Amino acid sequence: MIKALIFDVFGTCVDWRSSVAREVAAVLPGVDALAFATAWRAEYDPAMARIRDGARGYVPLDDLHLENLDTVARAFGVRVPDRWALNAAWERLDPWPDVLEGLVALQAQAIIAPCSNGSIALMTRLARYAGLPWDCILGADLARDYKPRPEVYLASCAALRLAPAEVMMVAAHNDDLAAARAAGLATGFVPRPEEHGPGQERDLRAESDWDIVAADFRDLARRFAALCGG
Amino acid sequence: MIKALIFDVFGTCVDWRSSVAREVAAVLPGVDALAFATAWRAEYDPAMARIRDGARGYVPLDDLHLENLDTVARAFGVRVPDRWALNAAWERLDPWPDVLEGLVALQAQAIIAPCSNGSIALMTRLARYAGLPWDCILGADLARDYKPRPEVYLASCAALRLAPAEVMMVAAHNDDLAAARAAGLATGFVPRPEEHGPGQERDLRAESDWDIVAADFRDLARRFAALCGG
Repeated sequence: MIKALIFDVFGTCVDWRSSVAREVAAVLPGVDALAFATAWRAEYDPAMARIRDGARGYVPLDDLHLENLDTVARAFGVRVPDRWALNAAWERLDPWPDVLEGLVALQAQAIIAPCSNGSIALMTRLARYAGLPWDCILGADLARDYKPRPEVYLASCAALRLAPAEVMMVAAHNDDLAAARAAGLATGFVPRPEEHGPGQERDLRAESDWDIVAADFRDLARRFAALCGG
Repeated sequence: MIKALIFDVFGTCVDWRSSVAREVAAVLPGVDALAFATAWRAEYDPAMARIRDGARGYVPLDDLHLENLDTVARAFGVRVPDRWALNAAWERLDPWPDVLEGLVALQAQAIIAPCSNGSIALMTRLARYAGLPWDCILGADLARDYKPRPEVYLASCAALRLAPAEVMMVAAHNDDLAAARAAGLATGFVPRPEEHGPGQERDLRAESDWDIVAADFRDLARRFAALCGG
C-alpha cells in the first residue's frame, strides 16, 4: 500500500546542531559555537516564511543559509574568513546513530527519498557525506516552495508518480507531519529529543495519532514491515 | 575541475533492447519480441520531438511509452493484457556488465546522476532494479523538456549548483554529447555497439574529440581519474 517513504532531513535524519557547531568552532575559535549554530538555525524559518508567503520568489536554501550566516555573524560581531566554505557546513551533518541501518532496512521495502527544504544540490552532497542511501532526491526544489506548503509534499509524490496515500512522510516534527497528513500522505514520527540540545521542549513526543510512532529508524523499519505486511 | 558526471541511461547504462524483449516475450508469446522492442523504441524520438518543438506540452516519458505501446501493439495486431504492467518493462532494464563497477569507481571521485529523458519516477525504479548507485536523479523532469534541448543539460547542472564546465555528460550517442558540449558541458563517450543488436551502424565510435573516449565504464573511471588528477 505504501510504496515510498519520504523524510525530513534536518533534525530527523541528521544532527545539524552539533555538526554545524563543529564547523563553526573550526573557523571561528573565539565564538560560542553551539550558540552560533542555534542562532543560525533560528533564521531558517523566518527566511523561508517570506518565500512561502509570496513576498519573495523561490531562493534555494543554500542562498538563504548564506544570507542568514551574514546576519548571525553580524550579531556575534565576527568576520567569517570564507563565507561559502562555512556555509557548506550544512552539507556535512552527521546522521543520528540509528539512521543508516534503518534506511537500509526501509529501502528493502519501499522507495526512500528526502523531502527536505534543502535543495537537490545540498541534499546530494549531504547524502554523499553522511552515506544516506536515497533512491532519489525530492523536496523544495521540485515545488520551488518550502514545507509546510502542501505543494512540496504533493510535488514529491507526483515526481514518483504515486498518490499521496501511497507515500509516508517521516519526521521528528509534528507540524511537518500535520501538513503532510493534510495533503493526504501517511505519516511516521520518530522523536529526536536532543535535536535542539538539552532542555528541548518541543516535539518530545507524537502529538497526534500518526500512522507509525517509532522509537528510532530501526524501530520504524520493523513497524513499517508490520504495517505493510512485509 | 569536473565535480559531477551525468549519464545518458537508455543504451549507455542499460541494455533496453534485450531487456524489453524479455518482458514482451513473457506477455506476448506469439510475437517477435526483439522486433517489438525495436519498434517500440522507434516511436521514442518522434513522440519527444513534438514536445521539443512546442507542439505539445511536457508529458513524462512513462506516458509517452504507454502511447507508443498502443501504437506498436496495433501495428503488430496484438492486444496487450495489462498495458501498464508491460509499460513498466522500462523500469526493469539490465545494466551492461561494466556499468556497476565503473559507477562505483566514478562515485568515489565525483557526484554521479542520470541525465536521461526518463522521468524521476522511471529512473528511480530502474535504479532500484538495476542497482545503479546514483547520488540523485536529474534529467528531463527537471527541465520539463527533452534532450537534446540545452535546457535539460543546463537544468541538471543548475540543480547541482555547478557550472556546465564542471559537469561531464557521458553517453554512447554522439548527438547527445554534441548537444551537451554546445551547452558548455565536458563530454565522455563509451561505445555500445550492440545497443541496437547485430548490424548496428550508428555510434560505433566517437565522431568528435570528446574529452574522454573510453572502452567501457571501468575504463571511463580510470581515464576520469587521470584527467582530474585523482
